[in-house]
Amino acid sequence: MARFESLTLSELPNGIWRTRFPVRFGSCDPAGIVYTPEYLNLFNGVIEDWYGDALGLPYHELVGTRRTGLGYAHVSADFATPSRMGDVLDVAVIVRDIGRSSVKLTVHAFKDGTECVRATFVTVTTSLVDHKSIALPDDVRLALKNYQAGYEEPAGAASTSPRYGPSSLPA
Amino acid sequence: MARFESLTLSELPNGIWRTRFPVRFGSCDPAGIVYTPEYLNLFNGVIEDWYGDALGLPYHELVGTRRTGLGYAHVSADFATPSRMGDVLDVAVIVRDIGRSSVKLTVHAFKDGTECVRATFVTVTTSLVDHKSIALPDDVRLALKNYQAGYEEPAGAASTSPRYGPSSLPA
Amino acid sequence: MARFESLTLSELPNGIWRTRFPVRFGSCDPAGIVYTPEYLNLFNGVIEDWYGDALGLPYHELVGTRRTGLGYAHVSADFATPSRMGDVLDVAVIVRDIGRSSVKLTVHAFKDGTECVRATFVTVTTSLVDHKSIALPDDVRLALKNYQAGYEEPAGAASTSPRYGPSSLPA
Amino acid sequence: MARFESLTLSELPNGIWRTRFPVRFGSCDPAGIVYTPEYLNLFNGVIEDWYGDALGLPYHELVGTRRTGLGYAHVSADFATPSRMGDVLDVAVIVRDIGRSSVKLTVHAFKDGTECVRATFVTVTTSLVDHKSIALPDDVRLALKNYQAGYEEPAGAASTSPRYGPSSLPA
Repeated sequence: MARFESLTLSELPNGIWRTRFPVRFGSCDPAGIVYTPEYLNLFNGVIEDWYGDALGLPYHELVGTRRTGLGYAHVSADFATPSRMGDVLDVAVIVRDIGRSSVKLTVHAFKDGTECVRATFVTVTTSLVDHKSIALPDDVRLALKNYQAGYEEPAGAASTSPRYGPSSLPA
Repeated sequence: MARFESLTLSELPNGIWRTRFPVRFGSCDPAGIVYTPEYLNLFNGVIEDWYGDALGLPYHELVGTRRTGLGYAHVSADFATPSRMGDVLDVAVIVRDIGRSSVKLTVHAFKDGTECVRATFVTVTTSLVDHKSIALPDDVRLALKNYQAGYEEPAGAASTSPRYGPSSLPA
Repeated sequence: MARFESLTLSELPNGIWRTRFPVRFGSCDPAGIVYTPEYLNLFNGVIEDWYGDALGLPYHELVGTRRTGLGYAHVSADFATPSRMGDVLDVAVIVRDIGRSSVKLTVHAFKDGTECVRATFVTVTTSLVDHKSIALPDDVRLALKNYQAGYEEPAGAASTSPRYGPSSLPA
Repeated sequence: MARFESLTLSELPNGIWRTRFPVRFGSCDPAGIVYTPEYLNLFNGVIEDWYGDALGLPYHELVGTRRTGLGYAHVSADFATPSRMGDVLDVAVIVRDIGRSSVKLTVHAFKDGTECVRATFVTVTTSLVDHKSIALPDDVRLALKNYQAGYEEPAGAASTSPRYGPSSLPA
């Protein structure tokens, strides 16, 4: 049924930042599972934490102090298995594409070590003063590239198709 | 920038159900625009209203009384222009595909008559008793087909590529 | 159990503005009833609609254009009976107290004509430029007083304890 | 302005459980501060964590497995100072009153060590099978009393008005 082949948590390279949180009552719907829009809210929070913890660029400074908008041009999510109250999710963030003014991230949620939800977020950087698109700030671009470098296989590795490079991880 | 070519509200056939609501304060984020995950929440409410108003099948009876789960296997949304507090959105629902146990809907939000957000929801019908996939109930399938028939061009029309049939509307 | 004596919808004076909405799936929790914090979100939306519809002062103009903050110094809610998906709520807003820079409102939700939730919101007007408290703008004060006058008993009425005046409605 | 005298974090006894979290973008409104209803959502999550971490009774087991409803008969919150994106809140839970089928908790949020929000939640235990009120389960009552005992002053202490007993902490 799922539109993606589930990864396992153990096959993620160490350099990929991850976080962990329990599924709480308030995130669940009358079917007893996470309410679909709430996944995107939870993942938005994960991305925010990732900016500060993995990139060293606190989200509130980018958005609040520097007035750099990190809004989305596209979001999507595919669901393999539902999550219930009390489940604990591990969630990892992978950088897929860095454009002139956009960044494509995938967010992977794992339950008991197997991927249960995969989401894609395409951010477009804007000025929050006039809401016009702006180029990705240099320090953000550098931090994104450094993050990627931390989990991609080294250039000199034997493999010509690096398993976790942007072009090899499942789209 | 947008991944879709915006429709205009006036070109939607009359048979397509639509609703209208204002963008409220509580739906907006510190950037002053609708918080992305909240769009999915708002659209989920639109789909719920559509089940009752357009299909004649109140959502709470399907999910509550009949214990038929209408959870999502996939959601996605593309954003052409942001919406601010006080904007009024017209939102329309189109049935794209009816499978054995799945339904693909697109939700189109219009601001000042021009499409600003387009979302896709793929529902999978499940039993809420054992959370297993079940075939789309007959009355739901019939209602979906009747709804589609209400805005598709009649079979005898001259055109061989009906503009608003499931295969011709923008994917 | 309830901390208030439930009103009935029919005993509300005509001058009191009211709105109506269904309880949707996304507002409910795994217990199948409205998630408590969501009531406050729904009521915040009701108050926002009331500013525009009953007072003639669109909320987004006050908060957005005029940068007048309408934040809360206090909120509370008491719950007599739970509301389920598919229930339809009538909700009314009453002005209780108008201070120099604060307004006290009560929000009353009715299910099948009987009050099921009563909430109190104390708004403090602030400048959103420097987040300092400011006096209630004159037009807001006037609109609030006019709204009150619309449902309070006329001054010449026999009763010395008007049933729907600020001091006589249930606290 | 505030309706309570702010505590400081350092004066809380050690036995009082506390947690800490950052204020995220998605919790904030167009005024740039935490959206009021979201405080109650955040605090509901805090209470849920507290059930598992401080009482040893995972919330999802009580509500999910045992079908014991922990819904609210009353909630209220008073706000002394607003919280912005990037602020870090320390939040503590105190048990105020244990009734036959109800529990009164206060939740205290601190910013930079000073209390900025105080909320009260009155839970009524119900059966989620028939939604009728039930007595507080024995293990829940015991865990609540043990929690209280962990921060109240010993009976033999000199003071006759224990500072952190249920009757002495600020109401």
